[in-house]
Amino acid sequence: MNFCSDNATGASPAVMESLTRANEGHTMPYGEDPLTARVESKIRSLFDTDAEVFLVSTGTASNSLALSVMTPPYGAIFCHPEAHIEVDECGAPEFFTGGAKLIHVDGENGLCTAAGFDAAWNHLGKSVHQVQPGAISLTQTSEAGTIYTLDTIRTIADAAHERGLHVHMDGARFANAIATLNCSPADMSWKAGVDVLSFGASKNGCFAAEAVVFFNRDLATTFEFHRKRGGHLFSKMRFISAQLDAYLDNDLWLDNARHANAMAKRLADGLSGVSGAAFRFTVDANLMFMELPEPVLDGLETDGFQFYRMADSKGKFIRLVTAFNTDPDDIENFIASALRHSGTA
Amino acid sequence: MNFCSDNATGASPAVMESLTRANEGHTMPYGEDPLTARVESKIRSLFDTDAEVFLVSTGTASNSLALSVMTPPYGAIFCHPEAHIEVDECGAPEFFTGGAKLIHVDGENGLCTAAGFDAAWNHLGKSVHQVQPGAISLTQTSEAGTIYTLDTIRTIADAAHERGLHVHMDGARFANAIATLNCSPADMSWKAGVDVLSFGASKNGCFAAEAVVFFNRDLATTFEFHRKRGGHLFSKMRFISAQLDAYLDNDLWLDNARHANAMAKRLADGLSGVSGAAFRFTVDANLMFMELPEPVLDGLETDGFQFYRMADSKGKFIRLVTAFNTDPDDIENFIASALRHSGTA
Amino acid sequence: MNFCSDNATGASPAVMESLTRANEGHTMPYGEDPLTARVESKIRSLFDTDAEVFLVSTGTASNSLALSVMTPPYGAIFCHPEAHIEVDECGAPEFFTGGAKLIHVDGENGLCTAAGFDAAWNHLGKSVHQVQPGAISLTQTSEAGTIYTLDTIRTIADAAHERGLHVHMDGARFANAIATLNCSPADMSWKAGVDVLSFGASKNGCFAAEAVVFFNRDLATTFEFHRKRGGHLFSKMRFISAQLDAYLDNDLWLDNARHANAMAKRLADGLSGVSGAAFRFTVDANLMFMELPEPVLDGLETDGFQFYRMADSKGKFIRLVTAFNTDPDDIENFIASALRHSGTA
Amino acid sequence: MNFCSDNATGASPAVMESLTRANEGHTMPYGEDPLTARVESKIRSLFDTDAEVFLVSTGTASNSLALSVMTPPYGAIFCHPEAHIEVDECGAPEFFTGGAKLIHVDGENGLCTAAGFDAAWNHLGKSVHQVQPGAISLTQTSEAGTIYTLDTIRTIADAAHERGLHVHMDGARFANAIATLNCSPADMSWKAGVDVLSFGASKNGCFAAEAVVFFNRDLATTFEFHRKRGGHLFSKMRFISAQLDAYLDNDLWLDNARHANAMAKRLADGLSGVSGAAFRFTVDANLMFMELPEPVLDGLETDGFQFYRMADSKGKFIRLVTAFNTDPDDIENFIASALRHSGTA
Repeated sequence: MNFCSDNATGASPAVMESLTRANEGHTMPYGEDPLTARVESKIRSLFDTDAEVFLVSTGTASNSLALSVMTPPYGAIFCHPEAHIEVDECGAPEFFTGGAKLIHVDGENGLCTAAGFDAAWNHLGKSVHQVQPGAISLTQTSEAGTIYTLDTIRTIADAAHERGLHVHMDGARFANAIATLNCSPADMSWKAGVDVLSFGASKNGCFAAEAVVFFNRDLATTFEFHRKRGGHLFSKMRFISAQLDAYLDNDLWLDNARHANAMAKRLADGLSGVSGAAFRFTVDANLMFMELPEPVLDGLETDGFQFYRMADSKGKFIRLVTAFNTDPDDIENFIASALRHSGTA
Repeated sequence: MNFCSDNATGASPAVMESLTRANEGHTMPYGEDPLTARVESKIRSLFDTDAEVFLVSTGTASNSLALSVMTPPYGAIFCHPEAHIEVDECGAPEFFTGGAKLIHVDGENGLCTAAGFDAAWNHLGKSVHQVQPGAISLTQTSEAGTIYTLDTIRTIADAAHERGLHVHMDGARFANAIATLNCSPADMSWKAGVDVLSFGASKNGCFAAEAVVFFNRDLATTFEFHRKRGGHLFSKMRFISAQLDAYLDNDLWLDNARHANAMAKRLADGLSGVSGAAFRFTVDANLMFMELPEPVLDGLETDGFQFYRMADSKGKFIRLVTAFNTDPDDIENFIASALRHSGTA
Repeated sequence: MNFCSDNATGASPAVMESLTRANEGHTMPYGEDPLTARVESKIRSLFDTDAEVFLVSTGTASNSLALSVMTPPYGAIFCHPEAHIEVDECGAPEFFTGGAKLIHVDGENGLCTAAGFDAAWNHLGKSVHQVQPGAISLTQTSEAGTIYTLDTIRTIADAAHERGLHVHMDGARFANAIATLNCSPADMSWKAGVDVLSFGASKNGCFAAEAVVFFNRDLATTFEFHRKRGGHLFSKMRFISAQLDAYLDNDLWLDNARHANAMAKRLADGLSGVSGAAFRFTVDANLMFMELPEPVLDGLETDGFQFYRMADSKGKFIRLVTAFNTDPDDIENFIASALRHSGTA
Repeated sequence: MNFCSDNATGASPAVMESLTRANEGHTMPYGEDPLTARVESKIRSLFDTDAEVFLVSTGTASNSLALSVMTPPYGAIFCHPEAHIEVDECGAPEFFTGGAKLIHVDGENGLCTAAGFDAAWNHLGKSVHQVQPGAISLTQTSEAGTIYTLDTIRTIADAAHERGLHVHMDGARFANAIATLNCSPADMSWKAGVDVLSFGASKNGCFAAEAVVFFNRDLATTFEFHRKRGGHLFSKMRFISAQLDAYLDNDLWLDNARHANAMAKRLADGLSGVSGAAFRFTVDANLMFMELPEPVLDGLETDGFQFYRMADSKGKFIRLVTAFNTDPDDIENFIASALRHSGTA
């Protein structure tokens, strides 16, 4: 009954079985194996385009390595002030890019807006004294659990391209956004103007597998060297590939995300009936930030539910995250517990 | 019948079973799980000292991250000209240290010597214009498949410490060296003066698991930040830990290495009977570099054996590597094939 | 009649004469000369403390090199959103620190406040996933031309030290602030909690001379290596030192700043009588940001006055900067021109 | 009577006078002044080609910034083991390139050879695991005081270009080589295959002025950002330009070098008559490395002559450097002193 993070889960059974199969026999190392080639091919099919694909094992590596080829070291990376690359990677983007500067693009509900990007762009000086255009990074699903419309992505991406910036998407929860928008992966990425996607899988059924997908193939030329010298080229790559091989089969990636989203929706619906409940953002995917009365929180914890307590200038709140394997009974029990402790049951 | 690399193998069955067990239930992410704590404790026991332990997933990450806290960015890292950190990591040590310079320590048979270190040290200027003392890195088992005696390690480590350098050991094949020297892990590391060890497992029965072991705990203070911003802190860390948990049980790590070494010894013995065979270095562990007549090499390949062909200023040669799961029959078949094609069978 | 910048000026006559004298004879290079030693000693006397002193030649080098020893590469540097290190150095602090992140401390009138620092500090997560405490940098005189009180500096410095941060002062216009506050250099630096000061001279009578002054001597240990590998250790150092030698003699530094400030005060007073004039900030030193009606601006330019036109989300404005050698007649002429073109003369 | 270094000298009188003239009036900062434009134009004329020119103030900055745009961070820079960039810049090239690796190109007499480059190139692996082709850097005049023939430069440059490397020339003593070879600056640079030249002046009559000259203009595109964030864009640039303005007038640069070379030649000729004198290298320019008997060295020092004593694996030796303003009488006195103390006078 851990609602702290989708990172607290293990992997889908099919992923584990794939791993066991991949362990058979010898293969050439460093991604020169047929399984890795197959996964790359599957990803190209999934996105319906001839992308360059590179596998890594963590989201931080995926984002930072992607950005390392999208901006010069004296470059600017525009992102939301609460983006994972800004607040949760201990400076990894700065490290991998050789010192690029992350510049805040404001926007409500955890999402950058075109107006916010305009303002940030206009505020940035345009001489040799300032950092130069590098990239903009959009997080889909955002850290707030909210989701960009395709139109917004396209509008921002167009504005970015006009200004000489590349467009990165942090898709740690890409699948959850697809599940919500019910569009194709192509629609939400290259057709909307995304140059490079960090396609996450570790949170959604794999345990250490991410793909960096270059729709703009020109940007991919030197990626392999950045990956290698970052220590992210696996000798026994097939064990990364095996995870994604199963993840991409039979729509596992999408079914997993749909389940997680459905659990979140049910949880949010149920909790909205608790007196004093207030949501910080819309609940578009598999995570939510909300306020609940202290006695309710204490009661939930007493009943064995785990979640992160947080606080900001507006006050205290909690984060609840569902996952691909969240038990529906746990959701119902959580809601019941909250209602009971709020005295409204 | 792949003798290219110990990287061409999969993982030990016990490691895969451990992984499956680790997949059960929820745990806290980022190494805050009990399995990771258990592995850290096992490593402390194995080395019989209260070391600080950090898990990563690749050898390059292990070496580079270790070095990143052992030298300033304007520092010197002394190593053999054929060290993995010098020739096979695409500049990862330079990247992680922020620009340290690797300085060659010469020595025959793939091993640094104390005299070689003296010469390199004396050649380095000692003013503000030169890079400053950082670390020396010894590879045990070396890239040449040779092994340092404990005395040599101690002598070099003492000389390094006197000069203000820290001592790193690249132990990608640490287990193979222990199997040969038949000493304790403590004897070959901190008791011989090693400050930080990159304890490899990925080549010897795991698939993506390495431990950075700090015997000099002062050096460990900031390591976690370097690991995180390098993208090497795994959210679902238990899947790294699970590999090492099995690896360290029942002497699996040592049995695996002993097997690989025995296979190499039998292979070397058998091939020494081939007319025209010449070994570049002594065969101390599980890999060898040797010359064989071209017709023998062609014949071996025709018979389905895979290995790397190489060349240097002294001429052509091949590399042969055995592994924890090398089939003894493959060894005998290899020898027989070589003898047959050399016309000496 | 150039009011664009104090960078548009040359050097004080005494500085040029000192340079000519320094050109005599041979001296040892790289700062091992008696003139450099004398300047270091003069700076210690000026600040009435046994500081470590290093000379460099640009403000960007001074700030960035100072910060490079005050924060780890995964560190946070707190500063005002309009600080020179944030908006005018093309990412130099990120470069020299190896990727530190600059975090905004809000505050009106171009100045960080203690409350702004509290908010920024509290917003920064405190786990391995976030950048770690490095430094706070205060600009005195600020980029807005405003000046911190000694109390504010001390309050912020105390809060920074309590949290494990070092305190940097960007003193590109340090002299102008001293001229205004009429306190001692010690009062405005180490006695107020400053660990490292970038003591500027290039804008105020020298042409390429700055001193990095370490009141916290522990931070100075490795500075010389950072300076050298940044290409900022001059072989013929005496030509940097010679500038400062004259600058520090006979209160030239202070007289120059007093003159510049007096010119700015007279200019501000005069322009406040122009219809439509509005100042963005208080005019505490030698620069001001203000709005003037377009016809006035056009008229001033027609009359041969140069200044920067700028714009932000609040509208258009100009920057006017006076210098150590601003001609009082130019000030009167500027005021008269503005009044005439505003039709109020 | 200081023969330690050409860095121990001041500046030519004409350079100082130019500086004084440059101090008049206001100009726009950061190189937007007419004097800087004039110097850039003069350098284009001197090299008889439409090069991009950037001014900096130290040799280390010039070399490192040049290399920063000639190699990726995971790149290889080939150079002689005794190159200034390798042994005397405290890792500046690694810093400015973001971690490139310097690879030794052996060669007698302080000069890289084509064969040495071939060997180094062939030894470098060509896969993702190795650093990638970046640049080769030739030092003309070399650190040994020897000089490449135009043919050798061309041969090495051609080999480098064929392999995808750019060609850098460290011309800290470029003028001295021109004086010896008696060829045009174009002949010794772009016509011989040099892409980027660090054109030194600080040692030869200026005090802090160097030009980075891009014959390959494509490489210059981003240089200004590297210069700025390295802290090497001077606000009062005219004071750098003024030095070069005079340096390039009336062949001052060449006359200065000719004088220094002539002094060195006379000194070498005179010292060759000292019993026990042995030169390490040919004396092609203005510096020499030689052995002299201890009593001679002691006697010289007693007589007030300063020089660096050094030692390597072959034994002790000294370095003697002449400069643009070396007094011929000092040369004669040095020779006489040496002869006298050797008992051969």
